[in-house]
Amino acid sequence: MKNVALVAFSVTALACLASPARAQSGNHLEIVHHPNYDKSVFMPFSPAIKIKSGKILWLAGGTALPVYHDHPHKREQILKHLPNDLEAQTRQTMDGIMETLKAAGASPKDVVHVFIFRARPRMGDIGKASAVVNSYFAPHHHKPATTNMAVLELGEPEQLIEIQVVAVVD
Amino acid sequence: MKNVALVAFSVTALACLASPARAQSGNHLEIVHHPNYDKSVFMPFSPAIKIKSGKILWLAGGTALPVYHDHPHKREQILKHLPNDLEAQTRQTMDGIMETLKAAGASPKDVVHVFIFRARPRMGDIGKASAVVNSYFAPHHHKPATTNMAVLELGEPEQLIEIQVVAVVD
Amino acid sequence: MKNVALVAFSVTALACLASPARAQSGNHLEIVHHPNYDKSVFMPFSPAIKIKSGKILWLAGGTALPVYHDHPHKREQILKHLPNDLEAQTRQTMDGIMETLKAAGASPKDVVHVFIFRARPRMGDIGKASAVVNSYFAPHHHKPATTNMAVLELGEPEQLIEIQVVAVVD
Repeated sequence: MKNVALVAFSVTALACLASPARAQSGNHLEIVHHPNYDKSVFMPFSPAIKIKSGKILWLAGGTALPVYHDHPHKREQILKHLPNDLEAQTRQTMDGIMETLKAAGASPKDVVHVFIFRARPRMGDIGKASAVVNSYFAPHHHKPATTNMAVLELGEPEQLIEIQVVAVVD
Repeated sequence: MKNVALVAFSVTALACLASPARAQSGNHLEIVHHPNYDKSVFMPFSPAIKIKSGKILWLAGGTALPVYHDHPHKREQILKHLPNDLEAQTRQTMDGIMETLKAAGASPKDVVHVFIFRARPRMGDIGKASAVVNSYFAPHHHKPATTNMAVLELGEPEQLIEIQVVAVVD
Repeated sequence: MKNVALVAFSVTALACLASPARAQSGNHLEIVHHPNYDKSVFMPFSPAIKIKSGKILWLAGGTALPVYHDHPHKREQILKHLPNDLEAQTRQTMDGIMETLKAAGASPKDVVHVFIFRARPRMGDIGKASAVVNSYFAPHHHKPATTNMAVLELGEPEQLIEIQVVAVVD
């Protein structure tokens, strides 16, 4: 009996040592649901997330430009990186956010809240942008709290989306 | 002596058991005011709030739709729940937020910051929306920090308001 | 030897007593950069900031009006304090935010994230507003994470900018 317990303990300890990132990722957050909520309704986001532990990571608003880009903006960079394609800009924006999360030791599973700001909205755009954003979290079975809207203008006339993320890290 | 101490302990313990929500609610926050500020000026919000303790609760942007609603949105749900009435939509939105706060064990007194995003603004709308929002906090003698603006469009053409809240819980 | 150690200790203690604000300011935050990022690119903001310690301070959206102003807004106050000059309004807004930070015991070095919301945008406005905002942080060699956009309307037709800040304090 004692040996079994010891082995169990050791395996757990080894697992912790072997994958510190995986061990923490997502463990700092608690998804908040209403009691007895209707699980037949498809919700692409969580109503609320509680930060149980860890340290808060605040990202700057991300765009389809490379995270590091010249200021003031250069016209040729704008034309190169901001195609008139919401889904392409959303993917490029999320790719940059993923790089920043990684640089801070966070994974998509650690994202608390996502602000999605769109410009030049067309009917159906909210769903198109959300589908791309959600595709970065789905493999982690995670649904951040999100807030989604269209604003008058982002940093450049060609910019269709800006995404601002708060996450939590060890 | 021993008995007295025991009774005192028991009363405290009972009080804790009887009102766990009241015991914590509002104690995590400190309202920040400027030194010697003019108290004759009516301020419906606090200039800043300091989170002294507790755990942060991040809500998704709330709308006049039920918190749990189908995605993609269903036209009949939009028409049913989004009347062309800013105050009605604000009340429905705040009701949903109150439900989510309750589900997480938070009260209106625990709200730190409120983002109020309005669409299709008309003159005076900022005051109308704020009055409804504030009515949910006034009974608790609480004034969250708030930020209020009109954006180009929210999730649906009929949506007049979206409210995003950060609170703190035990 | 004992005396030397004692003197060294005293000097440190005196330094701590003399400048408690300087001792903490900025120590709660960790700037997050991507590995091997291109340092030749001029970035006026940080990609992300990690809050390592301290207590979060959430400010209400600031405007060019005095932080304490009447509600509902008075027309003569609006006309007095909201000139049709983005840079002037940005300075007045940042001055109010600095007062609130000071009231809470925070310095510009403690700012985590800045939301810059502009209205009635003209070409080049994003750079003009950012230059003024950044001038408040540059003397502290600090670059908060920022998110910058134009919205449909702020609290009054004359209001050109609203700035919402999150900081950290002891």
